[in-house]
Amino acid sequence: MNRSTFEILILGSSAASPTSERNSSAQLLTISERYMLVDCGEATQIQLRKYKAKFQAIDHVFISHLHGDHFFGLPGLLGSMHLLGRRQDLNIYCPKELKNILDVINSITETRLNYRVNWHFTANDGLQLLFEDEKVEVFSFPLRHRIFCTGFLFREKPSPRKIDKYILEKLSISVADILRLKAGEDVENELGVLIRNEDATLDPPPARSYAYCSDTIFDPSLVQYIKGADLLYHESTFLEDQAERAKKTFHSTAKQAATIASMAEVKQLLLGHYSARYRDLDLFVEEASSIFKNSILSGDGKKIKI
Amino acid sequence: MNRSTFEILILGSSAASPTSERNSSAQLLTISERYMLVDCGEATQIQLRKYKAKFQAIDHVFISHLHGDHFFGLPGLLGSMHLLGRRQDLNIYCPKELKNILDVINSITETRLNYRVNWHFTANDGLQLLFEDEKVEVFSFPLRHRIFCTGFLFREKPSPRKIDKYILEKLSISVADILRLKAGEDVENELGVLIRNEDATLDPPPARSYAYCSDTIFDPSLVQYIKGADLLYHESTFLEDQAERAKKTFHSTAKQAATIASMAEVKQLLLGHYSARYRDLDLFVEEASSIFKNSILSGDGKKIKI
Repeated sequence: MNRSTFEILILGSSAASPTSERNSSAQLLTISERYMLVDCGEATQIQLRKYKAKFQAIDHVFISHLHGDHFFGLPGLLGSMHLLGRRQDLNIYCPKELKNILDVINSITETRLNYRVNWHFTANDGLQLLFEDEKVEVFSFPLRHRIFCTGFLFREKPSPRKIDKYILEKLSISVADILRLKAGEDVENELGVLIRNEDATLDPPPARSYAYCSDTIFDPSLVQYIKGADLLYHESTFLEDQAERAKKTFHSTAKQAATIASMAEVKQLLLGHYSARYRDLDLFVEEASSIFKNSILSGDGKKIKI
Repeated sequence: MNRSTFEILILGSSAASPTSERNSSAQLLTISERYMLVDCGEATQIQLRKYKAKFQAIDHVFISHLHGDHFFGLPGLLGSMHLLGRRQDLNIYCPKELKNILDVINSITETRLNYRVNWHFTANDGLQLLFEDEKVEVFSFPLRHRIFCTGFLFREKPSPRKIDKYILEKLSISVADILRLKAGEDVENELGVLIRNEDATLDPPPARSYAYCSDTIFDPSLVQYIKGADLLYHESTFLEDQAERAKKTFHSTAKQAATIASMAEVKQLLLGHYSARYRDLDLFVEEASSIFKNSILSGDGKKIKI
């Protein structure tokens, strides 16, 4: 069966400083024709062009926290959206101080965007619904980092049940009843016969979800928010050889990321936010796989489908 | 004769929005082992890595004006210099409001750099000496753009005169007198004989200069500041087909850049800051060459030696 798109394009997989191979943090999510940017490190607009992404189609930008490697690309992206004729609103979900920074920059550079920015500020308080429409919902949840930081959970809403067309042809059911069947109810047909939902419908495909956790110290308390996700992105700035440094800087090792993945019983773990000190990224997936088998590496330009 | 380095590395040659081939404005100047960054559009730190430039060796950064495509790369560059262990001072020459922007960003991101930034603010008042040491001097001068903007003039100081060694061997001259000869004076030798400077010394190589003019409307009043430069970088955002647009946005066409080069009697003209609308850059050099023959294109990664 053809499912709607649920895809992550990695735009940057480096920690703190970009390298010649790896840009600062940014990911483009495509969920059923909705384009969402998650973090926006320096040069994100250039990465979007490089990988031929539709950057004017992005209507939602999620910023986890206000370290530069997660948002220094935003002023330039907003400016280019303006210069290239954007008119539709842009929604930004972020710590509230980001608006202060943008206000100062726009004032001093004498920039007035030709489109509206709707600001939605994240809070440090459990699972917060940031966005929903008929197909998708997005939540933030707290991460423990040196400064205020949230993760994000992107989740499809459950699809309606599928009507079994073979059954439908044999029965005499009104349009209203078809909708009730899709919603999971039993109905009576025009002859007064009870049609049980399970006899007339098929299970819809399971709703998919993606959890994004960057940046964070090893913190099992976040497992509650990401339980059972199809894909978990969990930062792995370091390997275990730098576990002390990870703790001190409120980052995680590949092994710790895998431990969280295992505890949360997710289906797949995506590693990233690698410190520039490491050249051989295979070591990250080796270390993680010893704890959680289905671990994969992010890398600039890589696409992961759910 | 081997001359000391006087070289420009183009890090970005695009106007306003970067393209997949052209980054926002930035150039790295190397003058006798001094590394100077001129403008710092988004992703300049990535370009520096890509072209293997010694970015910790940069001690001077010159920012022409506060449109994002000329400074959005600065916060990330300063952060990476810090993360990679910089200790020595960095000098930034710029409009004063840039410090406000950096202060707000550093405060909100909780960044405290491990090195000192010395701020030097540009003024809108004729030729201003920004920096000098024994070999180099740098000036700013006003440009006419939509917001406060200056150009920069990088100039070698004249070298001392060369002593003609053949003459020196025949005469009896003290060390003090050698220095006076190098400074251009006549001296008497130990026997009381007058030695005329022109008989004992050779002309030093001529001092070289580079003038940087971005961004500006066509403005002949800037000719006084750049007269006779060995190389003039003059923005050419548009071709003549967009002359009206150039005027309206306080930018220049290739023909106008060439007209300034011709009036200023510079030796060579370097074009750049091309609008993203143009694909064929050869049209810029064709248009400019009809007015000023020695016109060349900038392009990311290109090196120009003076």
